[in-house]
Amino acid sequence: SPKNVVRCSVLGVQNSHAFSVGKKFQLDDVIEGQQFDRGLLGNIFEVAREMEMIEKNSPGSKILKGYLMATLFYEPSTRTRLSFESAMKRLGGEVLTTENAREFSSAAKGETLEDTIRTVEGYSDIIVMRHFESGAARRAAATASIPIINAGDGPGQHPTQALLDVYTIEREVGRLDGIKVGLVGDLANGRTVRSLAYLLAKYNNVKIFFVAPDVVKMKDDIKSYLTLQGVQWEESTDLMEVASMCDVVYQTRIQKERFGEQIDLYEEARGKYIVDQKVMSVLQKHAVVMHPLPRLDEITVDVDADPRAAYFRQAKNGLYIRMALLKLLLVGW
Amino acid sequence: SPKNVVRCSVLGVQNSHAFSVGKKFQLDDVIEGQQFDRGLLGNIFEVAREMEMIEKNSPGSKILKGYLMATLFYEPSTRTRLSFESAMKRLGGEVLTTENAREFSSAAKGETLEDTIRTVEGYSDIIVMRHFESGAARRAAATASIPIINAGDGPGQHPTQALLDVYTIEREVGRLDGIKVGLVGDLANGRTVRSLAYLLAKYNNVKIFFVAPDVVKMKDDIKSYLTLQGVQWEESTDLMEVASMCDVVYQTRIQKERFGEQIDLYEEARGKYIVDQKVMSVLQKHAVVMHPLPRLDEITVDVDADPRAAYFRQAKNGLYIRMALLKLLLVGW
Amino acid sequence: SPKNVVRCSVLGVQNSHAFSVGKKFQLDDVIEGQQFDRGLLGNIFEVAREMEMIEKNSPGSKILKGYLMATLFYEPSTRTRLSFESAMKRLGGEVLTTENAREFSSAAKGETLEDTIRTVEGYSDIIVMRHFESGAARRAAATASIPIINAGDGPGQHPTQALLDVYTIEREVGRLDGIKVGLVGDLANGRTVRSLAYLLAKYNNVKIFFVAPDVVKMKDDIKSYLTLQGVQWEESTDLMEVASMCDVVYQTRIQKERFGEQIDLYEEARGKYIVDQKVMSVLQKHAVVMHPLPRLDEITVDVDADPRAAYFRQAKNGLYIRMALLKLLLVGW
Repeated sequence: SPKNVVRCSVLGVQNSHAFSVGKKFQLDDVIEGQQFDRGLLGNIFEVAREMEMIEKNSPGSKILKGYLMATLFYEPSTRTRLSFESAMKRLGGEVLTTENAREFSSAAKGETLEDTIRTVEGYSDIIVMRHFESGAARRAAATASIPIINAGDGPGQHPTQALLDVYTIEREVGRLDGIKVGLVGDLANGRTVRSLAYLLAKYNNVKIFFVAPDVVKMKDDIKSYLTLQGVQWEESTDLMEVASMCDVVYQTRIQKERFGEQIDLYEEARGKYIVDQKVMSVLQKHAVVMHPLPRLDEITVDVDADPRAAYFRQAKNGLYIRMALLKLLLVGW
Repeated sequence: SPKNVVRCSVLGVQNSHAFSVGKKFQLDDVIEGQQFDRGLLGNIFEVAREMEMIEKNSPGSKILKGYLMATLFYEPSTRTRLSFESAMKRLGGEVLTTENAREFSSAAKGETLEDTIRTVEGYSDIIVMRHFESGAARRAAATASIPIINAGDGPGQHPTQALLDVYTIEREVGRLDGIKVGLVGDLANGRTVRSLAYLLAKYNNVKIFFVAPDVVKMKDDIKSYLTLQGVQWEESTDLMEVASMCDVVYQTRIQKERFGEQIDLYEEARGKYIVDQKVMSVLQKHAVVMHPLPRLDEITVDVDADPRAAYFRQAKNGLYIRMALLKLLLVGW
Repeated sequence: SPKNVVRCSVLGVQNSHAFSVGKKFQLDDVIEGQQFDRGLLGNIFEVAREMEMIEKNSPGSKILKGYLMATLFYEPSTRTRLSFESAMKRLGGEVLTTENAREFSSAAKGETLEDTIRTVEGYSDIIVMRHFESGAARRAAATASIPIINAGDGPGQHPTQALLDVYTIEREVGRLDGIKVGLVGDLANGRTVRSLAYLLAKYNNVKIFFVAPDVVKMKDDIKSYLTLQGVQWEESTDLMEVASMCDVVYQTRIQKERFGEQIDLYEEARGKYIVDQKVMSVLQKHAVVMHPLPRLDEITVDVDADPRAAYFRQAKNGLYIRMALLKLLLVGW
């Protein structure tokens, strides 16, 4: 579609990992948000919903029985790793784990990523990889003869997080077209909000509000991209007003590690936009609060009990999305 | 029962995790030694004995088929972790592992334990948690909608160790009422001996001997508790005499890390009470030597071949107790 | 056989772990290369070939269903560990993992290896151990009542690597008698080339060429051993000539860690013998290049596409050899 002609440069796609087979797409790898169009997302979400049924009702599923997944993590991320490993095991598959490949593996002796992949692909049927370098997942996929799933490569992509975010909005609000989303917090460094903005542009009549402290405002590349895609967006400094208008308030953590020595700037940014009972009091009844987690105090704990607090359901949706992707990559539709 | 009215303050129970359902108790979580009374212990030990039969004769057990256990370890403890993971797998269940959650997980970014639990409970059916803070397991259980097993929380509780100790005494000596137990070594800091003393007080006519170097004597809280419970106890400096009278000599390691700079005090304490061939020569024929392991040289290696050296059987009993608890928490009696 | 009377001192065998049972040998443990004679190797290779069929055609194999393997790694080696764990899981078995036993386990508190083994054997059916001390595997096997596989003990033995190397030569070249092998690179410190030379001496009319920088030449003990066994060997400084005559060029990495401060010596040694397109151009059509991996630049990447580049197939053969050994140790022939 013409929408997809223009692409945000920082998310620039160089080749596609999704190919059309009959009416459905054949997934070979999951490398970046850009490989998913609206149709493919819809299909994946359908499978994710089937996975939810399986997880709840079929504890002894054998859909991936006999398949072996290697979690090759060059930097630790327990949350993401457990989510993938749970997804594999919930479908009857097995797992090989390396949670500190950078320090422990042959990488420390100078082995290239490509050589590591060619070895590990001999031991497994699919590789879920987390790496500290942008583009690492693409390089792995170019080498491997088995599917690769990118579980985050440095400042680059974390496509399964982007998918679970969109899936959660659809599940919670009931639709994606015409949605109003407030993106709040660290919009400059947050990989998740950037990817989410990118994917939301695939839907119609979406409106996005950016609410960020000055030092971590959304960058121009995404704004230009949204404009070119015909997505309405505006910047605001009034979280209350935005919250009162939105279907989704997507809060994020201000990342201390980005501020280095400038602790005062961090503290100022961090306290600026907090989702608390006051914000919840203006939020519409059908609207929800999301957060990629981990959370510090940018959402107060007393919000957790509110049924509109969707962030733990969102984390759980990550399980269903990952189950769906593992199934699609290993046994197809 | 009136016995349970008085409780040792340092082991003070605030709420109960065991509820009566018909004749049997329903276990929701395993948090602390105090939640087990004599009847419940007896019932668990019966199941542990069934588990022993299963482990020996039914390698392909499917009792926990389709169940997923997360081992969430904030401090490493390979022995305890492997014991739980073996227990789960011997019953056909599956495992998600984090052996260094403190450093690797979102905890390092400031996430609360409660948030971590709410995420991990979405990926698993039961959480076995080891934590560096006293009370952490109770907090986890208060948050989680799935069962929590405390695999040690700092200086606090390690209830599965306490259970396996009592189970071992019953298996080795044949009874718990009327038992004479010598607790030897580091009685001030040893979590295991304190818990064991607490649980033994639930049986009749128990007599306990404390044999400890001066710097690590049993503290007054446990002594007062035993007195109030009507348990006979005395302190002794004569290991030979105690060994000749006891059914169980429970030796423990002097923990170097407790002595800080005072290496000379440590060395003096460490060499004071050693279980060796001389001690074994006065031990009664039916009596046994126990130790929670790891051992340094407080039991000499030449004792290992003596059939009364029960410590490796004791470690193995940990497997059966953990199999029993996993079964009871996940599928019931 | 008389050949086996003389043994290389550094590989000196003290007792045997293979016993004759009827026509086949009964394997109790896998500790060192010396326990395998020509007949046993042939039998294991036959099973490895069956394992290859199973891995390719029977994803849901249940040959080791109900068996539990503990990977007890005192030093990390992700490649070897994943290979063993994949082997176990490909046969339907289950795994308990410790990838940093040295730091995390009771070893840090001063527990002996023997005590650790006596505990871990209670949780599993077989132990795969990697240790930093030569002879550790033998000590473990002397203690354990379940099978031990040595996955490398310090500068000592790494028998499964040796077996997969010989298996790869047979698979790639079609025979072992009459083979010409060029051993290239760090022959002084390389555990793999030393073990390979030792095992090749069991076959007839073998000729070995040593091609090594002066500082890391093959040591006299192996040379004397080969001479006594009637194996022809010679040293050469001309890799091109050796490559043109050999059936196998076995390249190895120069290990930087062996050179300490002497970086210049390392750099000189490292650049001396590189397998590149020029070397490939003189290699015979039926010949192959092997490497135990990880590789740095001692084989140039453009060689990878050559069908005679056998090193990734060699890594994969490690899986089949380990599947074969696990099957033989747990359920027999």
